[in-house]
Amino acid sequence: MIPFVGRIDEAEQAVWIKQLSALLPEETIVAFCLLSDAEKSQCDVAIVANPDPQELMQLPNLKWAHSVWAGVDRMVDELTMMPFTIVRLVDPELAKTMSEAVLAWTMYLHRGMPFYRQQQQEKIWYQRAMVMPQDRRVGVLGLGELGQVSAARLVDNGFRVSGWSRTAKILEGIRCYCGDEGLEALLRDSDILICLLPLTDRTRGLLNYERLALLPSGAMVINFARGPIVDEMTLLEHLDNGHLDHAVLDVFAQEPLPASHSFWSHPKVTVLPHISAPTNPTSASQIVAKAIRLYRANGFIPEGINTSLGY
Amino acid sequence: MIPFVGRIDEAEQAVWIKQLSALLPEETIVAFCLLSDAEKSQCDVAIVANPDPQELMQLPNLKWAHSVWAGVDRMVDELTMMPFTIVRLVDPELAKTMSEAVLAWTMYLHRGMPFYRQQQQEKIWYQRAMVMPQDRRVGVLGLGELGQVSAARLVDNGFRVSGWSRTAKILEGIRCYCGDEGLEALLRDSDILICLLPLTDRTRGLLNYERLALLPSGAMVINFARGPIVDEMTLLEHLDNGHLDHAVLDVFAQEPLPASHSFWSHPKVTVLPHISAPTNPTSASQIVAKAIRLYRANGFIPEGINTSLGY
Repeated sequence: MIPFVGRIDEAEQAVWIKQLSALLPEETIVAFCLLSDAEKSQCDVAIVANPDPQELMQLPNLKWAHSVWAGVDRMVDELTMMPFTIVRLVDPELAKTMSEAVLAWTMYLHRGMPFYRQQQQEKIWYQRAMVMPQDRRVGVLGLGELGQVSAARLVDNGFRVSGWSRTAKILEGIRCYCGDEGLEALLRDSDILICLLPLTDRTRGLLNYERLALLPSGAMVINFARGPIVDEMTLLEHLDNGHLDHAVLDVFAQEPLPASHSFWSHPKVTVLPHISAPTNPTSASQIVAKAIRLYRANGFIPEGINTSLGY
Repeated sequence: MIPFVGRIDEAEQAVWIKQLSALLPEETIVAFCLLSDAEKSQCDVAIVANPDPQELMQLPNLKWAHSVWAGVDRMVDELTMMPFTIVRLVDPELAKTMSEAVLAWTMYLHRGMPFYRQQQQEKIWYQRAMVMPQDRRVGVLGLGELGQVSAARLVDNGFRVSGWSRTAKILEGIRCYCGDEGLEALLRDSDILICLLPLTDRTRGLLNYERLALLPSGAMVINFARGPIVDEMTLLEHLDNGHLDHAVLDVFAQEPLPASHSFWSHPKVTVLPHISAPTNPTSASQIVAKAIRLYRANGFIPEGINTSLGY
């Protein structure tokens, strides 16, 4: 018996259970609410999507839980000191989809699409000077699975790419920075800044007024990670005072973005409803099913997240 | 003495003459208007940019003219039966820049940017179902230098790509069509249609009401070639009756697009001011200079355009 523990809508949960059950016919996968107390005490593995900690606590023999999502920041916040391993989704398909979003919205800014949209509204026919991709400095914050694939794709498309990560990395074709000094250097060198960091205690509010001020004048920002990494009010200040040219935001401190938020109608902000890289239930289910089958065969539990790092 | 014959603004002409002169120090390159009659009679080669036919006719010994532009449709219209060879610019850098534009605006449509912009205006938070690139059928009209490089780049980015050309071609990863029947088949198979054809007698008005009707319902169109290839009024009809979802237009029957034109304020039209792939004077000058030096060395004239085909 494997419980699916999630705070997602019922239809979505039904899709996950159906797909996972088809891939694991030898298992019984059921919604948490359908378990008897006896069944709860037998569960050693769970599949989760933003689980309610109160529910997980009712599984006394749980050894590990596999998330169907890559982002586990809410789980980490709510589940400190839990005596089981949390495995987050690492899906190469997701990295590919994210790299497509990164490339698409980098091109959007690189090719001046917000500029030409504004011109169209004013019926202006004016050809802005073209910037060649090798002269466009793109900085990627976060060089995990998503960041590495995205940065490589930008390199393939001719951009001059830098990247920043917590620990030092060496990646072909990418100027790699790390640490506090490295962050300053990267910010000073980024015409387009792309945030792909996990949300942790260290990254919350990372892009504050002082750090955004280090970007070159006229720089543009893309946040495809988590809202709270960017200080929304200081981002607005920098857009309004002319230091920054545009922001593409897919994530926000509060989602859905409240109707009263000034981002919605700001001419220098592109609001997206958290669509950069949706989880693909087909490929995600395959990854989760494979991990569970391996566990049943030989007791192997995939590497869990580091709760002190937060990812 | 090599005349620069062009109907472009003086500053732009000065840039071309300066760059070409630097690359060809052994030659004297001057604006046509500065030539004496004796000098005119000595010219065997000219460099041109939308030249006035009346001026070219004053060069009785002209053997060939190298255009600094890739598009020569206006020259062909005005210069039929001229006794000299017209060489158009074939610049790999231009093909690269065009392929970047093709990729950028294909991503724009593929990722629903006009849809999400509309949502932002209405403060709607709604996640549209994601289409994977392998399920997005992209059709490229024209498989010359620009079309081939663009189609290959779309394949590299995971799209399902078809192409259509006058003569049959075989290109890796691309479903190639040719002829009238091939055009019908390609149109029926294109969620995103990209026009990169030269403007000729055969392509003028090619995308008329009947042919646009062959596109799948909800298809989108990009025209980066020449305005008159698409019948503008029937395109509007198809957008208004809901058959087509969006059009990205960089070229128009009349440029600049008149302020009174309904494209400007149409919610399903993205108007661009002919910016997809501007000529790069640096790389273009190098190509023209190399051709002229080769001609001086051994009399070799590059392959000219076929005036009966029009390109």
